[in-house]
Amino acid sequence: MSDAHQKSVPTPGGASGGPAGWHKDHITGSRPDLRVPVRRVHLTNGRDVTLYDTSGPYTDPSADTDVRRGLAPLRENWITERGDTETYPGRELRPEDDGLKHTAPRGGLRNLDAVFPGRPRQPRRSRDGSPVTQLAYARRGEITPEMEFVALRENVSPEVVREEIAAGRAVLPANVNHPETEPMIIGKRFLVKVNANIGNSAVTSSIEEEVEKMTWATRWGADTVMDLSTGRNIHTTREWVLRNSPVPIGTVPLYQALEKVDGKAEELTWEIYKDTVVEQAEQGVDYMTVHAGVLLPYVPLTARRKTGIVSRGGSIMAAWCLAHHKESFLYENFEELCDILASYDVTFSLGDGLRPGSIADANDEAQFAELRTLGELNTVAKSRGVQTMIEGPGHVPMHKIKENVDLQQEICEEAPFYTLGPLTTDIAPAYDHITSGIGAAMIAWWGTAMLCYVTPKEHLGLPDRDDVKTGVITYKIAAHAADLAKGHPGAQEWDDALSDARFEFRWEDQFNLALDPDTARSFHDETLPAEPAKTAHFCSMCGPKFCSMKISRDINERFGSDEDGTLGEEEVREGMLRKSREFAEAGNRVYLPIAD
Amino acid sequence: MSDAHQKSVPTPGGASGGPAGWHKDHITGSRPDLRVPVRRVHLTNGRDVTLYDTSGPYTDPSADTDVRRGLAPLRENWITERGDTETYPGRELRPEDDGLKHTAPRGGLRNLDAVFPGRPRQPRRSRDGSPVTQLAYARRGEITPEMEFVALRENVSPEVVREEIAAGRAVLPANVNHPETEPMIIGKRFLVKVNANIGNSAVTSSIEEEVEKMTWATRWGADTVMDLSTGRNIHTTREWVLRNSPVPIGTVPLYQALEKVDGKAEELTWEIYKDTVVEQAEQGVDYMTVHAGVLLPYVPLTARRKTGIVSRGGSIMAAWCLAHHKESFLYENFEELCDILASYDVTFSLGDGLRPGSIADANDEAQFAELRTLGELNTVAKSRGVQTMIEGPGHVPMHKIKENVDLQQEICEEAPFYTLGPLTTDIAPAYDHITSGIGAAMIAWWGTAMLCYVTPKEHLGLPDRDDVKTGVITYKIAAHAADLAKGHPGAQEWDDALSDARFEFRWEDQFNLALDPDTARSFHDETLPAEPAKTAHFCSMCGPKFCSMKISRDINERFGSDEDGTLGEEEVREGMLRKSREFAEAGNRVYLPIAD
Repeated sequence: MSDAHQKSVPTPGGASGGPAGWHKDHITGSRPDLRVPVRRVHLTNGRDVTLYDTSGPYTDPSADTDVRRGLAPLRENWITERGDTETYPGRELRPEDDGLKHTAPRGGLRNLDAVFPGRPRQPRRSRDGSPVTQLAYARRGEITPEMEFVALRENVSPEVVREEIAAGRAVLPANVNHPETEPMIIGKRFLVKVNANIGNSAVTSSIEEEVEKMTWATRWGADTVMDLSTGRNIHTTREWVLRNSPVPIGTVPLYQALEKVDGKAEELTWEIYKDTVVEQAEQGVDYMTVHAGVLLPYVPLTARRKTGIVSRGGSIMAAWCLAHHKESFLYENFEELCDILASYDVTFSLGDGLRPGSIADANDEAQFAELRTLGELNTVAKSRGVQTMIEGPGHVPMHKIKENVDLQQEICEEAPFYTLGPLTTDIAPAYDHITSGIGAAMIAWWGTAMLCYVTPKEHLGLPDRDDVKTGVITYKIAAHAADLAKGHPGAQEWDDALSDARFEFRWEDQFNLALDPDTARSFHDETLPAEPAKTAHFCSMCGPKFCSMKISRDINERFGSDEDGTLGEEEVREGMLRKSREFAEAGNRVYLPIAD
Repeated sequence: MSDAHQKSVPTPGGASGGPAGWHKDHITGSRPDLRVPVRRVHLTNGRDVTLYDTSGPYTDPSADTDVRRGLAPLRENWITERGDTETYPGRELRPEDDGLKHTAPRGGLRNLDAVFPGRPRQPRRSRDGSPVTQLAYARRGEITPEMEFVALRENVSPEVVREEIAAGRAVLPANVNHPETEPMIIGKRFLVKVNANIGNSAVTSSIEEEVEKMTWATRWGADTVMDLSTGRNIHTTREWVLRNSPVPIGTVPLYQALEKVDGKAEELTWEIYKDTVVEQAEQGVDYMTVHAGVLLPYVPLTARRKTGIVSRGGSIMAAWCLAHHKESFLYENFEELCDILASYDVTFSLGDGLRPGSIADANDEAQFAELRTLGELNTVAKSRGVQTMIEGPGHVPMHKIKENVDLQQEICEEAPFYTLGPLTTDIAPAYDHITSGIGAAMIAWWGTAMLCYVTPKEHLGLPDRDDVKTGVITYKIAAHAADLAKGHPGAQEWDDALSDARFEFRWEDQFNLALDPDTARSFHDETLPAEPAKTAHFCSMCGPKFCSMKISRDINERFGSDEDGTLGEEEVREGMLRKSREFAEAGNRVYLPIAD
């Protein structure tokens, strides 16, 4: 496993193994243990560009990481210093936690090594049952180290962070039992975030693969990871993922609860569900998708749909409601659920179990009925001190996206929206990272705070390593395009740095500033493999003679860049006339002589 | 070459070689030689879905194609019947047409075979110099066979086609010397179209590759192809491409003209340019990008830009203007140019030579100054009977896209907008098909009529076969997402058919309806390779127990789909109660027993 993991650790400087084009650095806050990771890209012109970094200690050569020991618990002191939590023996682990209720561990717990070996510890929870949430602290006017951390990360003031959390417009998912996490914030006033899903299903995959997918996803920029495992070893897989994850981990506890009743939805009970939530909260899950808005009366609204209920959680709850002809046990016990989450600082991600699964079903009554219930639940959760975000669609054609996000913001009092895509057409299986990347960019521009990625395998199979990377990169593009469109301070500096490098033929800087330096470099090398081509003042698209960039730089040099903008239009014209004469005198040569 | 070409011919039925899931068909119009190609997808439920088809006779098993002979000239009778054109000896071909002015044919015309061998013929042009354009016919109230052809293709009335062309809101590019083309229309009232660029550069590529790229691009859905060759053999490559192309071919004559003066922009003259336009018009080029809006006074406006002038044509014209300190010879001779184009029915694509090449430069004064000039030229071209579209950016952040298209539509009297992307961020070289696919979908929704694709190699290298396919598929997604958002009649039927297949686990139908059946099928097979899995009522994402589609179908069956919508809400509730009792009586089984 260690070996498998090592492969996923990215190498600063890229695949070429040459001198590092970037390195991991930290910005230290008001206390020495508050060190915010950043990626410093070193340009060949001597400047540095500082980028947001999600890759965790794995990219820090000075960090000593070992997947069997887990990451250092960087928030541990912050949590204990607050004095409002205590450790306790915790719930007893049972075979069925790993899906082993009735069956022999055929392919399950393959060997004892699969049980996470590192640092056994007791779970922690609120000392007196009152909320130990970032929301509760923010409302009391406290700026926690976590808030200061994200303020430095986002380049805003800590007070802005506190205000946004206190108002419920942002969440900072940080379970007291996941001290390894590097704090991050989800809210529309901040950088748009990206979630990557991992998770073995009953059919394929393994623990090792899931842990590696997590580190791989964060290496390319995933801000959170959801572990959607449904097969055996759920508990064990989650433990490995949590102990090694520098980003918040989300889950859907209903999936595990259903495993515990052998997949029979009608046998689910509030007690089994609650026990699963406690189990996962003790492990350190930072946010949980809860489909408490799928109500009995809404189920018939889906019967006339083209694709019915496509959310697994939604369909499980619908089946339960039908089987018992009772209102959802999640809805009926929501307040108790809130109090459990509040005592660990688990954030709600109120699931949209009735999200549309096709263009035809977008923005229909079933979807909006559920959204109104989510709005109601959002108010309840906030009143009990629980951080809350709201999940969104799904499949939505472009002209219905804005209505969707506007309605969510209105009904849910601007609680962070967390959307899957949306996919803007159904006709391109194998390319749904693109059909959904289009919708994701738009909905993020209009107010979505976090985007759940979609990989090329959506609807078809389980994503492998390449699919995870493609999904994350596509969604980082969508998120950044939205940051630009929202005018997020500093967002455009990244584009400007890359465009400057392009205009000045600084190829290595272009690669190092790219979202995916390795692929950019390899595409360039395919056409012009020679090392000198990386400093050539032309590129393969136009060849040496036609390069428009070169002509354009010439114009730039002739007229001067007038960077201070002090020249009037007339002066520019005059300068132009003068320069044109110089141009002729110099022999009318726009192109440098080419040896060919 | 024949062999190489054969490889690119798609096989009906997909890669599996099994029974055909679709076949090429034709809809016959008012005359027997008016046969509109369509793709009929045969669903396993006995229904057919009819899709727009751009792949030409290559997918028609009854057609006898041979790249050395070229395609059958299907429009020839329509053109000659009009009686307004005549053949003539044509301009004499010269070595410099293939870039061989001063140099030995090192790597050029490698052997005599490279010269297109099929069907030598004299070029054709207007008999008396008056416009022989679809615009002229439309204005006279004539519905040509070409117009009827596109009406059948777009499922609208021929009169709508005529009206849109007459008003200048649509173009039907169809040079009288390219009778092989299957007519298509570009305008915002019609399906959004996609252009794919091909073209060898001085550095790499060959004639064979370019012809194969063309058939490959049209196989995946390219509606037009631009041949942007800049190296040697320009004339010869173009001849091969034209004679084998079922879609309109566009070019940038300036590239070839510059070859004729050895790449020295200042040596360009109106005479050399005009001669090149005639050369290409005689070959059959259907539309030409002309950068006549790059005026001398606008050049200084680019000096303060981050990335100056990134259009090759724009930078060549800027260099010429500077060298001579004269107004652009394209602008000065625009009326004569119009009359040449009108006598072959070559459509103008008025190039945006000053389009932004970075987020920082979007929607700046240089860009909009040129746009105003393009508006002026559009009016001139129309007055002389020339069909005209307007090219657009480039790099534009999402929040500036609508301003861009709105301004173009206003200034250019709703002439079709033909945009490159736009790219919505600069930070993702190697993924610019995605950064631009986002912008393309949005700008098409808001009124762009044709999208010029961007491949993953943009900014980095020359696209290969896979890149061309990825670019085309990405842009078909953007175009179709826009068709949906615009509410184009019939667009959603495709999505609905695929979503129905998905909901009913008709895997083969899903694949055959997909934009890329081969990749969808192979992704599915990676996780669940067995043939029975293609009819399985579950998929690899959830495994057999958790499938939400299955639960949802169960709900659907329990409540009835009420397809006629006659049930009131109360009746549905009652039905639900009744069904819930049945559900319990049937043993509360939502899942079918699974052997596992």
